[in-house]
Amino acid sequence: MPHLDFWYEFASTYSYPAAMRIEAAAKQAGVAVAWRPFLLGPILKAQGLDNSPFEIFPIKGAYMWRDVERICEAQGLAFRRPDAFPQSGLLAARVALTAAVAPVRPAFSRKVYLAQFAEGRPIAEEETISAILTALKLDAEAILDDSRSQMVKERLRAETAEAMRVHLFGAPSFVTGKGEVFWGNDRLDAALAWAVQETQTERAGPTGATR
Amino acid sequence: MPHLDFWYEFASTYSYPAAMRIEAAAKQAGVAVAWRPFLLGPILKAQGLDNSPFEIFPIKGAYMWRDVERICEAQGLAFRRPDAFPQSGLLAARVALTAAVAPVRPAFSRKVYLAQFAEGRPIAEEETISAILTALKLDAEAILDDSRSQMVKERLRAETAEAMRVHLFGAPSFVTGKGEVFWGNDRLDAALAWAVQETQTERAGPTGATR
Repeated sequence: MPHLDFWYEFASTYSYPAAMRIEAAAKQAGVAVAWRPFLLGPILKAQGLDNSPFEIFPIKGAYMWRDVERICEAQGLAFRRPDAFPQSGLLAARVALTAAVAPVRPAFSRKVYLAQFAEGRPIAEEETISAILTALKLDAEAILDDSRSQMVKERLRAETAEAMRVHLFGAPSFVTGKGEVFWGNDRLDAALAWAVQETQTERAGPTGATR
Repeated sequence: MPHLDFWYEFASTYSYPAAMRIEAAAKQAGVAVAWRPFLLGPILKAQGLDNSPFEIFPIKGAYMWRDVERICEAQGLAFRRPDAFPQSGLLAARVALTAAVAPVRPAFSRKVYLAQFAEGRPIAEEETISAILTALKLDAEAILDDSRSQMVKERLRAETAEAMRVHLFGAPSFVTGKGEVFWGNDRLDAALAWAVQETQTERAGPTGATR
């Protein structure tokens, strides 16, 4: 089955519409998706950026807010610009990587994006995350405890290192089974098509069609 | 008739596929397009960037080359990564703004992009531009003379100032008749649809449908 890694950062505005539509789009395309939260901050820092590019370049930032607003409207998604930007995605990413949340990671992640970009809630605060976990009928206290463990912290560091290893520099990004990288919500459909195509090419073998 | 300003920089890789497809796409959508070359350098400089972001951030740059290669392949466009990047688009932009080239500005511009990104030729050199003008059956020598005039230099400065005034920060960008800005080759279709929609809304008047 064709495969796509969906790399997302909880603080990323464009990851929100991607997270809300990727499951339906992938199902239709017949592609299996792995949800992989990571931290963009360390990756930007390694490139000499100590803040969101949308803050460093305010003209680009102003455009981004308008663009995301349009995209959400076209997608039928609620959108409200949060008071604070960027928010830290650290807590949400660690919680997403706990063993208890793993089976519902997509649903958890969508709820975090909705809290942040539809309801204007602070996702760096335990209260917000706790309420989301409770709504998912999970043991919020036990999961928050686990999210502070060395093992979970290390897991997030390893995922972020892997994102850097495959040369990601923004979110959302999509990486096919064979390592083709696509950056940006607007590349989701191209990424899905590529993932399908590369599996078909593989199946066809050396005498089959090549791209 | 719905209107779209097509703002492009001759050095911009993503402007190449946009320039090659905008006329057919606009015709199909029923949108009139104004081709407006400008210089991105002074705009980036005002934001503290003294080179192409693709050079300042090499991981993003490497991705861009792969992405443009894929886009060109999907669009059936020849693509060859030029030896030098970014090239100066100054000469080409001035020539594009001369009175003699104005009536064939789209054809001239497409030839400059093909020379740069399909044939790997140096577009900052008069020889390359001269050959393109001659191929268009224009008086290359007279036009190059005119491109050095104060009037043409001032025209390009004014266009670049206008691009900055409407908050452009990258190329290609598309601006509708009512000032809605879209950035990036991948937003061309959304920009055309917006231009059509805003004209329909206007025609419907105050009792008509609103967006």
